[in-house]
Amino acid sequence: MEHSINTEIKKRTNEEIYQQACKVIPGGVSRNTVFHEPYPHYVHHASGCYVIDIDGVQRIDFANNMAALIHGHAFTPIVDGVIEQIKNGTAYTMATEVEVDFAQLLCNRVLGFEKIRFVNSGTEAVMAMIKASRAFTGKPKIAKAEGAYHGTYDFAEVSQFADPTNWGDINKPNSVPLAYATPQGVLDDVIIFPYNDIKRTISILDQYADQIACVLIDPIPHRVGLLKGSTEFMEALYKWTRKNKALLVFDEVVTFRTNYSGAQEYYSVKPDLTALGKIIGGGFPVGAFAGRSDIMSILDPTGSKLLFPHSGTFSANPVTMTAGRIAMEFFDKEAILKLNTLTQKAINQIEEAIKIAGVPVSITGAGSMFRIHLRSLPPITYREAYQSKEKKIIINEILDYLFYKENIMMINTCACMFSTAITQIEVDRLSEGMLNAFKLIKPKLGRLQ
Amino acid sequence: MEHSINTEIKKRTNEEIYQQACKVIPGGVSRNTVFHEPYPHYVHHASGCYVIDIDGVQRIDFANNMAALIHGHAFTPIVDGVIEQIKNGTAYTMATEVEVDFAQLLCNRVLGFEKIRFVNSGTEAVMAMIKASRAFTGKPKIAKAEGAYHGTYDFAEVSQFADPTNWGDINKPNSVPLAYATPQGVLDDVIIFPYNDIKRTISILDQYADQIACVLIDPIPHRVGLLKGSTEFMEALYKWTRKNKALLVFDEVVTFRTNYSGAQEYYSVKPDLTALGKIIGGGFPVGAFAGRSDIMSILDPTGSKLLFPHSGTFSANPVTMTAGRIAMEFFDKEAILKLNTLTQKAINQIEEAIKIAGVPVSITGAGSMFRIHLRSLPPITYREAYQSKEKKIIINEILDYLFYKENIMMINTCACMFSTAITQIEVDRLSEGMLNAFKLIKPKLGRLQ
Repeated sequence: MEHSINTEIKKRTNEEIYQQACKVIPGGVSRNTVFHEPYPHYVHHASGCYVIDIDGVQRIDFANNMAALIHGHAFTPIVDGVIEQIKNGTAYTMATEVEVDFAQLLCNRVLGFEKIRFVNSGTEAVMAMIKASRAFTGKPKIAKAEGAYHGTYDFAEVSQFADPTNWGDINKPNSVPLAYATPQGVLDDVIIFPYNDIKRTISILDQYADQIACVLIDPIPHRVGLLKGSTEFMEALYKWTRKNKALLVFDEVVTFRTNYSGAQEYYSVKPDLTALGKIIGGGFPVGAFAGRSDIMSILDPTGSKLLFPHSGTFSANPVTMTAGRIAMEFFDKEAILKLNTLTQKAINQIEEAIKIAGVPVSITGAGSMFRIHLRSLPPITYREAYQSKEKKIIINEILDYLFYKENIMMINTCACMFSTAITQIEVDRLSEGMLNAFKLIKPKLGRLQ
Repeated sequence: MEHSINTEIKKRTNEEIYQQACKVIPGGVSRNTVFHEPYPHYVHHASGCYVIDIDGVQRIDFANNMAALIHGHAFTPIVDGVIEQIKNGTAYTMATEVEVDFAQLLCNRVLGFEKIRFVNSGTEAVMAMIKASRAFTGKPKIAKAEGAYHGTYDFAEVSQFADPTNWGDINKPNSVPLAYATPQGVLDDVIIFPYNDIKRTISILDQYADQIACVLIDPIPHRVGLLKGSTEFMEALYKWTRKNKALLVFDEVVTFRTNYSGAQEYYSVKPDLTALGKIIGGGFPVGAFAGRSDIMSILDPTGSKLLFPHSGTFSANPVTMTAGRIAMEFFDKEAILKLNTLTQKAINQIEEAIKIAGVPVSITGAGSMFRIHLRSLPPITYREAYQSKEKKIIINEILDYLFYKENIMMINTCACMFSTAITQIEVDRLSEGMLNAFKLIKPKLGRLQ
């Protein structure tokens, strides 16, 4: 095997690299999500659903770079296609054919994607979608769900980490800043509602009816609890936005993986705009937003009303476009059915493990994603799903046990985002590992409840 | 040659691809900068300082993807290094050694880079730097120069395209929105000053002294006129920020190419934070911000005061890190001296062409960048550099002539951003091409003035 770890390759330990990292990177980590006690582990290489660290430890990857890798690591068709592109250059001050073909492919997949524009990250996608909503409607405010993560644009991250000390009355949740000293103007222009709670949400929206440019929804918001938005909730939001000249916009950066046309396929009502990212980049930095042609025309530099001038040095670069196009071509209806079926099987096996262990644990999710909660019944709101400090400690204990003892990587909320590289073998290891983890933490759970 | 254009490869014309693009992309272009009348041209491949379109037309590239490619296209050491990395995976939910080594490399280059964090674009870098400034100082406002481009974060793009109809009194320039319906709160929190105008700038800053988190400066702002900030101006801003507990932050996304330590090497006073992008990605999507350790510690997830929680799916991905590290290793002091010397030679030759043609044209710039202005004396302010509609038409005529008749690509402001792949041969073709262009537009310039 060409990637074998030998003493020549292994020059430094994880701890030694981390010590160097702490000298030049705040906290020693480029992304807070990769930190592990007592130090992060450094990857040597990865292939399919396996990641091998510099110590030669091989772990099954159920995190897939925070849901971004739909075919796992180093997927051969992507590797081959991208290598060919890189030899021809990675970015030009001119257009490329592949961006047009990839735009066409995505528009073909989703009825509501009449026009699309690429950017470099999910953060940029949501930011551009919000700016487009304001420019099209002429209104300044957005509305979003308490607890929902939508990237690092400050308007989008209001109330992302709202907690019992600051979230306020459920009938009118506070706009809670994420970063310290977020301007008051930002907080004033973000209206917070409780996810899936139709009555309270409509009542809150009504108070700002003439000022709301868009209602921003992740149809299965991970941080809210990985709860699917109810049909009735989506229909109520759709109806409200029609009545009040606002847009209904979906953040499908994570959820696009659930169906051939994304999570919006679950609903009869459709968003006006959709933000994309993660899997559509085939493992390379990407974002996009797509939707109604009349709205997207505000971006047209050749048009008469360029209400939203927008560009980006690396947007639609041919490497990302090539990787993304190949990733999505292989992620066809058959691949999705197979992946979602396997994921459901994993959920079933873990539910069996929950029964065997006799622990008060539940699972939420959809498609190729699920999240584990330390409560008997699955949460139905953000406030229910909210993890107390005590629960967070136990969740971390589960994650650490899986990481160090079972060689299993999950997302730090105790969630799995599957890739097509995963097979029944890895699912069995996951459910067995979870069973062991449940047994381990069971005594603590008893004390908690 | 493996990349030869033959009829088999050339399946569609530029016009045909563009027609398809118009159906799925607003205005048919993913980035407004790549549009050309009557349609954009699509790249087949690129190598060194040459870009070959799908018609087989080979052009010299003086744009380098909006200044992002310091070694031109498909630079062999980057291609080789990146291919090796891609075979091992492109992104993980774990850390990598190369991000630490690249962080160390950049911190070694610049005295003031005590800590660094990577993001995915210049836009994300400036946004994060602004949010960090607010979080560290506890203050809500930023101050920036009229006309300066700092990416697409809405706070950063206020007054980017201010024009005579809306820029207002020079003693207190208006905060002009870029996108339609930018919230008033955003405009209120961005204070605009005239670049290089010490007296007016300090007077404006003084009016908001207790509310300004940072003064955001591009030391050689391209859209302002590619004018170097004067030593006195920088020293005045430094002094003002010390006095008023604000930060001085530089946007060196473009200008980092000018010296081994970026444009900040020109000044005795140093910024507290610096945003990077473009060349440090080696041709892949990148951004970063770096600076004082005490400020950057607000990002530390292991620390006691995580005032600015921040993450990103593709931030510090090992492909960008590998490409960037190699690009910057090869962009050493010797390479920079050689590149800047050749660029100065190009400026000298074009100035000679200006004399021969007898046209009222001047040149601004620094390092490996210059910009051509249709006025006898170089502009010293944004308002002087501002191009009237009539001048813009002539600029476009020059650019189109160079693109179609001389096979030369420049940036759409009539600027060149050199790469190390350029040689005296291309410089001679540029100055000869410019001479021909000057002769062509001379009659129109006479009428204009």
